[in-house]
This record gives sequence, C-alpha cells and structure tokens, in this order.
Amino acid sequence: MDTLLIDGVQVTPQKRIVNPRGDILHALKRSAPGYVDFGEAYFSIIHLQTIKGWKRHRRVTLNLVVPIGGIRFVIYDDRTSSTTTGCCSQIILGTENYSRLTVAPGLWVAFQGLCDFNLLLNIADEEHDPAEADNLELDKIPFFW
Amino acid sequence: MDTLLIDGVQVTPQKRIVNPRGDILHALKRSAPGYVDFGEAYFSIIHLQTIKGWKRHRRVTLNLVVPIGGIRFVIYDDRTSSTTTGCCSQIILGTENYSRLTVAPGLWVAFQGLCDFNLLLNIADEEHDPAEADNLELDKIPFFW
Repeated sequence: MDTLLIDGVQVTPQKRIVNPRGDILHALKRSAPGYVDFGEAYFSIIHLQTIKGWKRHRRVTLNLVVPIGGIRFVIYDDRTSSTTTGCCSQIILGTENYSRLTVAPGLWVAFQGLCDFNLLLNIADEEHDPAEADNLELDKIPFFW
Repeated sequence: MDTLLIDGVQVTPQKRIVNPRGDILHALKRSAPGYVDFGEAYFSIIHLQTIKGWKRHRRVTLNLVVPIGGIRFVIYDDRTSSTTTGCCSQIILGTENYSRLTVAPGLWVAFQGLCDFNLLLNIADEEHDPAEADNLELDKIPFFW
C-alpha cells in the first residue's frame, strides 16, 4: 500500500491474474485497506480528454478502480483541519497502473480520460445521495489540466 | 425485476444514465433485490467465443453485471431439492441488455464472450475461498454451445 501526499488518500495495488481465456482483476475485498462499508457500486465512463469534476463528498468514502483504459485523478484538499490543506495531488490509474484509489470524504476530486475508452468502477460506502455531495465548476480550483 | 425459469436466479435491469462526457451505469445498491452482503468485487474478462465454467459455489451468491461487450450465461440446476432440477437456462447480458444477474449458491454457471471485448463484474457476498466452489469440465454438463 502506498500513501499519496494528501491525507486521507490511499493507493492499493490490485492483482491481475493472467488467464488465456481472459484475465481476472481484483477490485475490492471486505478485509482490504480502505474498505469501510458497502453502499453502492457503479461505473463511470469518461471519454478521451474529457474531465468530470470537481465533486466533494461530505460523508462518502470512494474506492476507485480502472479496469480499462487510463484515467488521471486529481485530488484537492481545502479542509481547514488537514495537515495537507491547499495541496493538489494527481495519480493515473488504469491498465498500466492497476491499483485501487481510496478517497476519504471532504476532498475535491476530478478525473480525465486518457485513452480511447476509459471505465471507472466506484464502490461507495453509502447509496447515492445528491445532498451529501458538492460540485464546483472546473475552473474554480486552480489546476493546469 | 424479471425471474428466469430456474429457482434462485434473478435478472434486475440496471440504469444507464446518458452523459456527454461518459455515461454512468448502475451496478448494485445495498437496498436492491438480490443483494446479500459484500465480500469481494472482481472483474473477469472473457475473450470472444471463449467459455469459462462450469463452476458452482456452495455458499456464495453472485451479482453479475456486464458493462462492456456481451456475455452469454448458462445456468444449470442439479439440486435435488429444487423445483427446477435438471433445467438449464441462458441469458445474454451486456451493452444491449444492461441488467444484473443474481445467482444463488448451489447452481452451476458457465459463460461465453460474444464480442471482441467483454468485461464482467462480480460482487460476491464472501471473499474468494476456493474450498467453497466446485469445478466441472465443460463437456460434463450437456449444453450445446
């Protein structure tokens, strides 16, 4: 397990088991670091060069894996009580770096598609509730995409 | 929600929310029919025309979704206490029929890739334990693939 600069962010490498009929890719186990609870699993497709974000969850922890393509995640910390206030980190996940990204609540997240087809799985510890998330226009957080 | 012929199998249509930057595809919610518990989530790629199976879980319930491609699932019931003993059912899931397939323990499952690229997500209610699953060679259960 690796820890990014920002407090509350974890990157956990996941196994890819090679199989001639089609590989198996691990995503999340109940006993794994970063697992909190199961609320909902959903996919998000992100087209090449396109960006989704910024979004901040107030209560929900995200567990993100990219089984196909490549996605750049950028995380921005504006929590006043954090040791990493004002920091912005990025990581690329996907076929070339098959890991799981855990993001604690309270952090701003945006992500960009890097390949022709990019698929993200998010396993969240609560079911979707728009009232617990905040959204910001892309240009409201300074990051050079 | 739809019910297949075989007792213990459910098909639950899942939403695909269209988005110009990339669609959102629902997979599983804690409150949904067929959800039992969270043990592990993993992907299985299955190449075109290739078949994985037969496999039978003794305790584990499977929740299967196919966000990319198309996969034919065949389920065979040899449980002596079942109302559908001896029955074999098939269903195709994927981009053209985006649904979740729930399979109760005790049923034999095999699946075949139908497109150039096919991705399956399984959310199981236990972590992987080879001791709770049985395997059979493909030709040991009569089905004309």
